[in-house]
Parts: sequence; structure tokens; C-alpha cells
Amino acid sequence: MGPDTPPGLTLTHIVDRRAALKQARHPELSRVAWTASIADVLASDADVVVEAMGGVDPAAAWIEAALAAGKSVVTANKQVIAREGARLLRLAERQGRQLRFEAAVGGAMPIVRAIADGLAGDRITKIVAILNGTTNAVLSRIESRGCSLDEALTDARARGLAEADPSADLDGDDACAKLAILCALAFGIRVDPSQIPARSCAGLGAGQFAEARRSGETIRQIAAAEFDYARATLIASVGPERVPLSSIFARAVGPENAAIITGEHAGDTGIFGVGAGGDATSVAILSDLAAIARDRSAILPAPHLTSNFTLQRQPSDLLLQPSEAVC
Amino acid sequence: MGPDTPPGLTLTHIVDRRAALKQARHPELSRVAWTASIADVLASDADVVVEAMGGVDPAAAWIEAALAAGKSVVTANKQVIAREGARLLRLAERQGRQLRFEAAVGGAMPIVRAIADGLAGDRITKIVAILNGTTNAVLSRIESRGCSLDEALTDARARGLAEADPSADLDGDDACAKLAILCALAFGIRVDPSQIPARSCAGLGAGQFAEARRSGETIRQIAAAEFDYARATLIASVGPERVPLSSIFARAVGPENAAIITGEHAGDTGIFGVGAGGDATSVAILSDLAAIARDRSAILPAPHLTSNFTLQRQPSDLLLQPSEAVC
Repeated sequence: MGPDTPPGLTLTHIVDRRAALKQARHPELSRVAWTASIADVLASDADVVVEAMGGVDPAAAWIEAALAAGKSVVTANKQVIAREGARLLRLAERQGRQLRFEAAVGGAMPIVRAIADGLAGDRITKIVAILNGTTNAVLSRIESRGCSLDEALTDARARGLAEADPSADLDGDDACAKLAILCALAFGIRVDPSQIPARSCAGLGAGQFAEARRSGETIRQIAAAEFDYARATLIASVGPERVPLSSIFARAVGPENAAIITGEHAGDTGIFGVGAGGDATSVAILSDLAAIARDRSAILPAPHLTSNFTLQRQPSDLLLQPSEAVC
Repeated sequence: MGPDTPPGLTLTHIVDRRAALKQARHPELSRVAWTASIADVLASDADVVVEAMGGVDPAAAWIEAALAAGKSVVTANKQVIAREGARLLRLAERQGRQLRFEAAVGGAMPIVRAIADGLAGDRITKIVAILNGTTNAVLSRIESRGCSLDEALTDARARGLAEADPSADLDGDDACAKLAILCALAFGIRVDPSQIPARSCAGLGAGQFAEARRSGETIRQIAAAEFDYARATLIASVGPERVPLSSIFARAVGPENAAIITGEHAGDTGIFGVGAGGDATSVAILSDLAAIARDRSAILPAPHLTSNFTLQRQPSDLLLQPSEAVC
């Protein structure tokens, strides 16, 4: 254990479009093969490929090629897992290899393991969560400073927490992809992220926060999903919601994420932690690498997902009520 | 997934001192072999033994015998894992079998996986936690009702949350065993639970809670451990502590548990959930069973624990300060 490469693993290759340039900047990595071509890695005897490039294309194809070449894969790519995860996990299972993706949801907060593993003995019925660290940094900044959204965005960019174009974060695309992954893990259903109703946080300003505060509330981007197993009905949404100032969600500031997972038997289990940034992502990736190093032939059965359910549109604030009781 | 027996597993035996009596009460379990003798299970072809009897003797010997007989074991027994865990985990590894113990710490809150697996990529430096659901139910009852400790205990017993003799809970023996397990998982050190300085909650009354409230605080039984890797020094304690009313610890009421785990890279990761009671324990046990059913030949390397460290006595309230910042 530790912040470095997990025991039993050696970094052999780095693939980067600007490999030559970056190699010159990292003399400490002189024993690593730098390359601009994924083919070099696929042809090598590397056992595990870490994918941290983001985006569906070409990441999905590269992950597939790595699994097909008999390598295990660790990825931080929520878009690929949300859209192609089931297929890629089946491929990994057929290949006797592992596809792990703790870093795709929640940063360092180990929510993928909590749902898929730690609470596997329960029947999970609901998830209410903050899943986008960038948006949370922006909204909690508006709350604490009374500034405009643009000013909060400038601050988030200065801290390395926001891209030049933050629309995927503020509009909810990022959180929808992560929520779709959690729906697959928790409920066993296949939801396309684009099916999840999303409302943007882009129109928010200090005025709405001041108004919320007068009711003892603030505003967070909340991703929520509730599944009724008997009726095979999903209620899901992503968007700005008013949450009590005392809630676990209001208490998530900066790039923090938080989630409350409700099970039929365990009741509410909560988890929170740093959801964005290089360090948080690195911890999640290294934890997945440690799991592979521990047991290279571990069996991770691909989930059996059903599309046979109804997605119901309903005011999402209904989803918050039961959680407030425990917040 | 679900609240029932995980797929791929069948309940074959139940060992109970009063097997004959209980069998008559459970006609729905007519296909299960009821017995008062562990030897019947050891001689059977059962693959997994679930131990939920509590206490070190004879539980530790039975777990050892089950592993020696080639069976995997799931246990809720914190005393056995705290005292004999390293040895039993080595035996399990040698046998190519699994010893899983999520239920031993935190009830349904999956803290064992969070530390041993989800945050394995970080270097954990500190754990501050509520680990005893019984004591938390008693203390939060005194807080909310202004009643005496005896009245709160009577209420906890009525809810099935306290034994006739609650001293192991209130005095901290239970939390010390759980903290010792977490120290092994997080820091790689072997701590005997009896080495951890503990102060009892038995002397607390409504007066202390009223006084704490005047400072915006309340009282919880806090288990805390901080490890300095460079100096190989552990600071650990269990006992009543004043915590801010706004903290995650004050917000844990009834049988809830809560923990903040600090890593060098991921910062603070929090987790909370129901820490006591049959349902919470069942979820943790079933999750471990699901993990075994998924991969019966999974490799769980036994931890390499060192006793080569100094246990430093120090006012434990120092441990709370950094966490308060995020609570």
C-alpha cells in the first residue's frame, strides 16, 4: 500500500500524443518506453493498460483492443463505461481478464465498490448523490462568496477543477453518465445517459443561493435515481436541487462528491470524498491496479443488465425527501 | 443481488446449541440440516462456513477448523479477527480459501472494503470513527431526551440494540477490537485491542450533554488512530469525546456508525451507515458471501503486519481537530 506504484507492478509504457516532448521533461522515467502509438502497448507483454484519456473515441476502441489482446484494463472513463461498459465487461470476462473503473465515478470516493461489492448483499432501491466535482466547486463557491457563476468558474479553472468548456459538467452530461453507471451496478438496468432528464446549472446565480438560504437551504447539482423493482420503474434526474444546509450534500464543498445509497435492509449508507482532481483519480486508479496485482486471475462476472423497465418523469425533488431525514 | 441467499449459494446446515428446538420453529427450512455439532459441518461438503456466534472461544477454533477443512469462512466476529485475524488469514491463503469479515466492523457500512480495497492506492494516515452502534444509540438517546444513561440503556435493550451486560460496548472493548482491525488494514500494524487506551462512557449523564451543547457540541464514543509512518508511531484511543453538533459524528444517531479516513493523497473520505442490528450484519455477511460466490478461487493475500512501532499516549482530542474542518 502507498501512493506509489502498487507492489508487483512496474510501469513499462506511456502512450501520449506528444510522447517525445514529454519524455524529455521526465528524465526520472528513463526506463519507461514512451510512445505515441497504442499499438506498441498492445504488442508488448504488458499485463494491464490504464486508460485515462477521456472521451469515447478512440478510448472505447483502445480498451476493447487491450482486452482482446489479453490485457486487463483500468479506466477513469465514465462515458465509455456508461455507454459500452456491459459489452466491454463481457469481453473482459470471456478473456479471463479484468476491467476495473473505480475512478470513473466519485473520484477517490470508493462508491463503485460500495455498491457493487460492499452492499451486494442488500437490494438497493435509491441513490441520491453529488457526482460532479467541478459543478460542486462552482456552486459551493457561489454559495460562500455570493459571486457570479462566471467568477466561480474562473476560480475553478485556476484550481485546475474546470475545463475551458465546462458545459458537460454544468449541463449534467458528466453526472448523467456516472448515474447511468450506478444504475447498472445498483439496479441491474441499462440506462443510456442521454435518457436521464437533466437540467443545467448554467443559469444559476448568487440570487438563487440567497433565496435558498432564507429557507435554510442551498443548491447542489443532485443526481438521483430510484428503482421500483415490482413495477420495473426508474425515476432518475440530474440537475440543481435545493438541499437543507444541514444535509450531507450541502456540506460537500469544493470538488467533493457525496452519495446516500438506500437499501431495503441496510437502510441508508453514505459516502463522501474528493470527487475531482488528479490526486483523487490517481488513488482510485492505483486502488484498481492494487486489486489486479493482488489477484490477476480474479473473476469479475459481467452484470446482466435489463432494458425492460420504464423511465418515469417525475419532479426529482421527491427523491430528496426520505434522505433529508438522515442528513 | 438481493436480500436473499446470493445466487450460486445454498444454505445446507445450521449449527445451533438448541438446534432441535429451533428446527421445529422453522418449518420453512426443512431442507436444511440442523445440528448442534460443528463437526457435522466440517465433515460435510459445504464450501463456506458463516460464523456469527461471537466471542473468541470456541469461535476462533471453529474458524480455524473450517479453513483447515478447506472451507472459506465469513465471520462477523471482531474479537477473533482483532486477535487472531493475521494468523487465520495466513491459513486461509495457504489453503487457497477466503476469510472475509466485512460484518466485523461497521455493520452494513462497508468500511473494511473501503480501507483494504477502495483506498488501497493511497497511504492512509488517520481514522476517526464511531464504531459501536450500541453506545451510539445510548449516547444519542441521552442527547435527544435528556434522560439518564440507565434509561437510555433500557430503551436500547427494548430495541434489541444492547445486551443485558453492555459493559463491552460502553467501556470501549468492542470499539477497541474494531479499531485494531482497521489499524491492521490501514497501517499494516499489529495492535492488541487491550493496548489501545480506552475510557468508559458509563459515567456519562444528561448534564455533560447539556454542557457540551452550550459549546455547540455533543458527545460520542470516538475511536481514533493516527499513524506516523516516518516515526513508526501510533496514537490511538477509544472513549467519549466532544464533537461539533455539525460534524458527521454528531449526526450519527441511534445505531449508526460513521468514519472519516484520511489519506495522504485522497484527503478525507467519509462513510456512514447502520452499524448494529441483525439486518445490517446480514447485509455485510451476504455481501461477503456474494463475493465468494462470484469468485471461489479469489486470492486474498494475508496482510504483512509489523509490531515494530511505538504506541504513544496523547490526548485523543488532538485527533479530532483536522477532521472537524471537513465535518
